Amino acid sequence: MAASIAPIASQATKLTTTQQYAEFIDKFDTFLLDCDGVVWQGSHVIEGISETLDMLRSRGKRILFVTNNSTKSREAYTAKFEKIGIHAKEEEIFGSAFATAVYLSSVSKLPEGKKAYVIGMDGIRQEFALQNIPIADSEEDLADMTDDAFATIKPDEDVGAVVIGFDTHINYRKYAKAFTLLTRVPDCRFIATNTDLTFPAAGFQFPGTGALVSVLSTSTGRQPTVIGKPHQTMLDCIVEKYHLDRDRTCMVGDRLDTDIQFGINGGISTLLVLSGVTYEHQLHTENPSSVPTYYMDSLGHLAKVRDDQ
Amino acid sequence: MAASIAPIASQATKLTTTQQYAEFIDKFDTFLLDCDGVVWQGSHVIEGISETLDMLRSRGKRILFVTNNSTKSREAYTAKFEKIGIHAKEEEIFGSAFATAVYLSSVSKLPEGKKAYVIGMDGIRQEFALQNIPIADSEEDLADMTDDAFATIKPDEDVGAVVIGFDTHINYRKYAKAFTLLTRVPDCRFIATNTDLTFPAAGFQFPGTGALVSVLSTSTGRQPTVIGKPHQTMLDCIVEKYHLDRDRTCMVGDRLDTDIQFGINGGISTLLVLSGVTYEHQLHTENPSSVPTYYMDSLGHLAKVRDDQ
Repeated sequence: MAASIAPIASQATKLTTTQQYAEFIDKFDTFLLDCDGVVWQGSHVIEGISETLDMLRSRGKRILFVTNNSTKSREAYTAKFEKIGIHAKEEEIFGSAFATAVYLSSVSKLPEGKKAYVIGMDGIRQEFALQNIPIADSEEDLADMTDDAFATIKPDEDVGAVVIGFDTHINYRKYAKAFTLLTRVPDCRFIATNTDLTFPAAGFQFPGTGALVSVLSTSTGRQPTVIGKPHQTMLDCIVEKYHLDRDRTCMVGDRLDTDIQFGINGGISTLLVLSGVTYEHQLHTENPSSVPTYYMDSLGHLAKVRDDQ
Repeated sequence: MAASIAPIASQATKLTTTQQYAEFIDKFDTFLLDCDGVVWQGSHVIEGISETLDMLRSRGKRILFVTNNSTKSREAYTAKFEKIGIHAKEEEIFGSAFATAVYLSSVSKLPEGKKAYVIGMDGIRQEFALQNIPIADSEEDLADMTDDAFATIKPDEDVGAVVIGFDTHINYRKYAKAFTLLTRVPDCRFIATNTDLTFPAAGFQFPGTGALVSVLSTSTGRQPTVIGKPHQTMLDCIVEKYHLDRDRTCMVGDRLDTDIQFGINGGISTLLVLSGVTYEHQLHTENPSSVPTYYMDSLGHLAKVRDDQ
């Protein structure tokens, strides 16, 4: 087959020596870290990670854990980190629930007096409360959906956005309400915390937020604004919140099509780690899905950098 | 703009005189009738329909009401017909719940000893019971989905098919179970009663079966076998059940892209009625979505045919 006219992918630089690690660290002020495959793998923390985090903090680097999981607030996430033995401060955690709250309160504000109709779990509601975003949904949405209930579902003109995240209490009544808002309330926005098609739990995959969102996108014909990786919105929220210098920020992740593409889309440097789902040979194919700026075996190896380097 | 090279659509014949109506009726032994827009419009029966049905029956014609709605069994549908004032026999009703039961018991049988995991309402369960198709789902699927529940969801090797229809009691636990079966049980089939994206109720639209199905198709990457119109499976089930002669069968409907296309796909004649969602000018565009064999203002006009015609 003749080669296509696609541009030749630029090469990623592999970091292998302590000297290279030290130079890499010096280039950046902020490291955005994906969690699964970078910090932990399943239920165990990747070797050297705690030491790496301590070393980076001691050098004044900012660490932000960036996760598409919308089920937990930053406060709840901190507890999860502590439980598996990693120290993390609340302000270091940037989940898609918090990102969505930042988005609707700072980046693309809900009009004054408008509420959000939320399909999701406590994480979103807690973060929305902290950012003073009023919520329209209620306990009644958990009630059984009867034939008579269809007639009671009305377009609430006070709702300015339908927000959908992962929700193990998803039901037809929530979908029917969201559909009614999205099709019959003028200017009602449609926002998804993320669009991961699967959700990892108990060692297996299950339907993820992106799958739950598809009920609304297929039936309304509308596509949501997506906050989470690899969409740009999440990075815009992070930059807005922390006033980051994109030239001094590096995204670290184990997935080419989400983490690395997320960094590339946002015009920041990227580091792929091979401690998760990606193998080195996937970088050396003719058309890798995304090419990181750097790659290394594990972020835990950065701990080899000594204080005098 | 230059005309495209698309073939010129063949012309549909408009039926306007009593003589034409009589000749049309003589051509067929069986009429497959869509319900909404043909028999009734919203909550009122279309004028002349009861008389038309009586006349057709008196001439020995077989009438089958063909509907994608899977929520009701034939028995329950008969009661619905009577309630709005139309006499219909149970064996004249062919809903997608019954069609799915025929499919799994006669057209493409479940292997001996295999069960169906059903997401859907009573209609499917009742029709499956009548066709002796064992069902795998249980009351427990309606229980609250907790974090601990993920670990309890196991692939049940006795399940040969996941069947999904419209379900106002849809929940995450059902989706998680269906996902687990579809991804971890070898040869587990994936069947949707229909893929209508919206469901009409209380004068408005709400998310339909096709929207609910998308959770499983997006997360598993699998596409279901679809039973309902415009898919061919439903017609195969009808022909199998009633041993119909396709040359003497006519599909009557008000939608070009579902009803008429359904008939065309099945190699039978089609009659479009203008008593529903389609306007006559839509047939006269350069590229109508589907071209029926015949069209007329309303099926109720056939009642003008007298006994001596």
